[in-house]
Amino acid sequence: MTSTTEQNRVLIFDTTLRDGEQSPGATMSHDEKLEIAALLDEMGVDIIEAGFPIASEGDFEAVKAISKNAKNAVICGLARASLTDIDRAWEAVKYAARPRIHTFIGTSPLHRDITALTQEAMIDKIAATVTHARNLCDNVQWSPMDATRTEHDFLCRVVETAIKSGASTINIPDTVGYTAPRESADLIAMLLERVPGAEKVVFSTHCHNDLGMATANSLAAVEAGARQIECTINGLGERAGNTALEEVVMAMRVRHDIMPFDTAIDTTKIMNLSRRVAQVSGFAVQFNKAVVGKNAFLHESGIHQDGVLKNVQTFEIMRPEDIGLTAKNIAMGKHSGRAALRAKLAELGFELGDNQLKDVFVRFKALADRKKEIFDEDLVALMQDTASTGENDYLQIRRLRVVCGTDGPQEAELTMQVGDTEATIDATGDGPVDATFNAVRMLYPHDAQLELYQVHAVTEGTDAQATVSVRLSKDGQVYSGQSADTDTVVASARAYVNALNRLHLHQNRANNSALMKSAG
Amino acid sequence: MTSTTEQNRVLIFDTTLRDGEQSPGATMSHDEKLEIAALLDEMGVDIIEAGFPIASEGDFEAVKAISKNAKNAVICGLARASLTDIDRAWEAVKYAARPRIHTFIGTSPLHRDITALTQEAMIDKIAATVTHARNLCDNVQWSPMDATRTEHDFLCRVVETAIKSGASTINIPDTVGYTAPRESADLIAMLLERVPGAEKVVFSTHCHNDLGMATANSLAAVEAGARQIECTINGLGERAGNTALEEVVMAMRVRHDIMPFDTAIDTTKIMNLSRRVAQVSGFAVQFNKAVVGKNAFLHESGIHQDGVLKNVQTFEIMRPEDIGLTAKNIAMGKHSGRAALRAKLAELGFELGDNQLKDVFVRFKALADRKKEIFDEDLVALMQDTASTGENDYLQIRRLRVVCGTDGPQEAELTMQVGDTEATIDATGDGPVDATFNAVRMLYPHDAQLELYQVHAVTEGTDAQATVSVRLSKDGQVYSGQSADTDTVVASARAYVNALNRLHLHQNRANNSALMKSAG
Repeated sequence: MTSTTEQNRVLIFDTTLRDGEQSPGATMSHDEKLEIAALLDEMGVDIIEAGFPIASEGDFEAVKAISKNAKNAVICGLARASLTDIDRAWEAVKYAARPRIHTFIGTSPLHRDITALTQEAMIDKIAATVTHARNLCDNVQWSPMDATRTEHDFLCRVVETAIKSGASTINIPDTVGYTAPRESADLIAMLLERVPGAEKVVFSTHCHNDLGMATANSLAAVEAGARQIECTINGLGERAGNTALEEVVMAMRVRHDIMPFDTAIDTTKIMNLSRRVAQVSGFAVQFNKAVVGKNAFLHESGIHQDGVLKNVQTFEIMRPEDIGLTAKNIAMGKHSGRAALRAKLAELGFELGDNQLKDVFVRFKALADRKKEIFDEDLVALMQDTASTGENDYLQIRRLRVVCGTDGPQEAELTMQVGDTEATIDATGDGPVDATFNAVRMLYPHDAQLELYQVHAVTEGTDAQATVSVRLSKDGQVYSGQSADTDTVVASARAYVNALNRLHLHQNRANNSALMKSAG
Repeated sequence: MTSTTEQNRVLIFDTTLRDGEQSPGATMSHDEKLEIAALLDEMGVDIIEAGFPIASEGDFEAVKAISKNAKNAVICGLARASLTDIDRAWEAVKYAARPRIHTFIGTSPLHRDITALTQEAMIDKIAATVTHARNLCDNVQWSPMDATRTEHDFLCRVVETAIKSGASTINIPDTVGYTAPRESADLIAMLLERVPGAEKVVFSTHCHNDLGMATANSLAAVEAGARQIECTINGLGERAGNTALEEVVMAMRVRHDIMPFDTAIDTTKIMNLSRRVAQVSGFAVQFNKAVVGKNAFLHESGIHQDGVLKNVQTFEIMRPEDIGLTAKNIAMGKHSGRAALRAKLAELGFELGDNQLKDVFVRFKALADRKKEIFDEDLVALMQDTASTGENDYLQIRRLRVVCGTDGPQEAELTMQVGDTEATIDATGDGPVDATFNAVRMLYPHDAQLELYQVHAVTEGTDAQATVSVRLSKDGQVYSGQSADTDTVVASARAYVNALNRLHLHQNRANNSALMKSAG
């Protein structure tokens, strides 16, 4: 690696599992977090911010498990400016081959008011906490939260303090999504020029998209000397979200002529990650989303179509295959064999063992019998459903029959296996799904709250598969379930039961460990 | 108005109805276009690009009707560099109090190859077409398509030609969404400096969002001297869409300190327009969309919540009410009276006459009986459904009963009024919606194609109202229908029948006019 390429290498710091998962309604399960982390690692993300270990037991366990599983990526845990927070973060990330602690404090006047700290007291606190983190871990990142609204003189002082105390990465967050490109660049340039020791550390940019400029602001920071971009898949994150990984990575690739920066991202894995994050978070990607939207590569107007046919460059600056998007209309149907299915699934990012393939193939055939054309999205939905169904589940739907229509109330007749017993019941409700959920609740009484119920029609047409996401909560713990079927009501029932199976499993484990404690 | 404010006034050119409507799948009906245009006009959009009159009879009629209805806005029609196109555009916009013709030609090497024109031949063509447009209309806008990939010297020559030939607005399109902020600014600055006569015209920016930078690119162009931004509601448009109106307008407002530019937009009308455009286009807005996303003003993490409670400015740079977003959880329910409903609907942007209110109130009460809490979204869905149902419709659903579940095939029993006759039929299908649509087709045979079937759960919970959009096409004409109900299957049936009623109406009109012709 020459010195020039090293200078132009931009680190990609993905915070889908921390800042992204913090979006109201986007909570992910432990297994989902592990899966996303593995995919990010494989795609070439340099640093994965896996969670905020002190926030909850669930966050802690996820960061710990991700640390143990990590292959190449640095695994980072977030901590406030508190010794307890930092200890907890270290307890979780220390299992990683390459751990990082990320600690932060709000430095703008508004945040100093909230914490009731003077400038001097804040500087002492930064020195103490960063030093403590550095004593535990040799890779420490520090962030002045709300940096873009912090006075420049004070910002220089706090950054200098963090560098002196041992931080090797200084992240400059635009916490409220307030800045604009030139301002973002000027801020990094100012810090690089004024802060003693700035040349020894990596400056990072962390932008929010409240005014729609996160991507441009991140790239402007890089042009001014930042060499790490904090971002999330699909721009997931609080409010209008964070910088979208797919946008900054593709922009540097497409406009390498004016932004000669490189990342280690294998861009052909972007589309699959985008789909998985949309599924597990329940945050669908809008059709007109840059890079990963359903329409991002579609053309309609006659003029444009003509141009595309004559020369693909006329209107396409990226090729669909650059982000791993394969041809939309594929010849998959009832005559497709097992090898074709395996090849297609591999193309979509799913590598299957023989037994798994057998299960999926049976479901694929059943779907092909009911649906004329099988699209990529159908297969993704099918895989998703397979992942969340198990033959050993405590609750299993045997038969469901629903009567609905204009003359309410709607009725559901449900036969369900509950442990060793099979039972049948009738229930009514407001709409077919409500009736079905009532029937499930009657056969498996529980006090979990329904937090989210969402339907996505994944391909078009009335015989489309609908993907249903259900999220339940109990005692602060979240359990989600998903399912796909051409019958929305059936998919809803399965998704609900999947979530309840997770709840059951969790309670069982908790009971066992309580039993063991009282026995020991 | 002082000279300084005049210099800082940025014109908002909305192309939701032209470039937005061009997105694959976003086709709008005639009535929907008229409604959106009226809302844009009322919100203070300076120029409404209403369509591309030569593209289809439907486009022509829509532009003509919008021109007749316009109050304050300039109404603009698009035309290629052809005299026929320009004549047709003029035929449609001439009914407006303030008409504009917008003509364009692709000027980049790629486009010159496609049109097989030399630079000299292209310049002659531009002179001829712009002169022709100016002879018809004193407000002419000209665009060099793919300007950001056109050689600077040639770009200066074509812009100079258009100005000399009478164009008063020069629009610089980044047709492929390829540029970056500094480049976007440099291009406008270069044109203002080099092109003779540049000071006499308004420069305009038209950006696409393929790399996620449309908003920043548009604002950079304004900082360099452009004084018109072309944009769409929700960033609707081909591929990754156009610049989002709500983002550029709110960015200039929130960051007026560094971007001291003003528009005439009443920002409190943004949210209602965003909702209506999402509904009629069928392009849902993602939760984490800047400004208008469902989560744009939501906070989750404990730290952020704490900050918000202590000082709302800590994490909010905009207030929900700035864009017309009213409190989410409102006390509307079965005890709410007619006055409360009218006030709430007015807040949401719906002004109702007494008779209309009566109809809506009946449906509101029926909904309140079935659903515990009525959210803003429920009311918007209710209004949408009311707008699309008429007592004089040719097809009317009398009764629907559907049986679905795990043991297919699903069955639908439908009683429907078809003209003067009431008929009942049984049908089966793959899923409850498929069975229902089959029943409708059996009672009202037709050969329209189903182009789109989409379900959105508008509020959360299993008793949420689902909004269903259906789009049919026949002989190049598009007919859409929407409906909302707590029962997805019932909403689907109504949406399908609404679309068929529009088709029936259109065919009837066509038959009548054919009859009149043969009679005359």
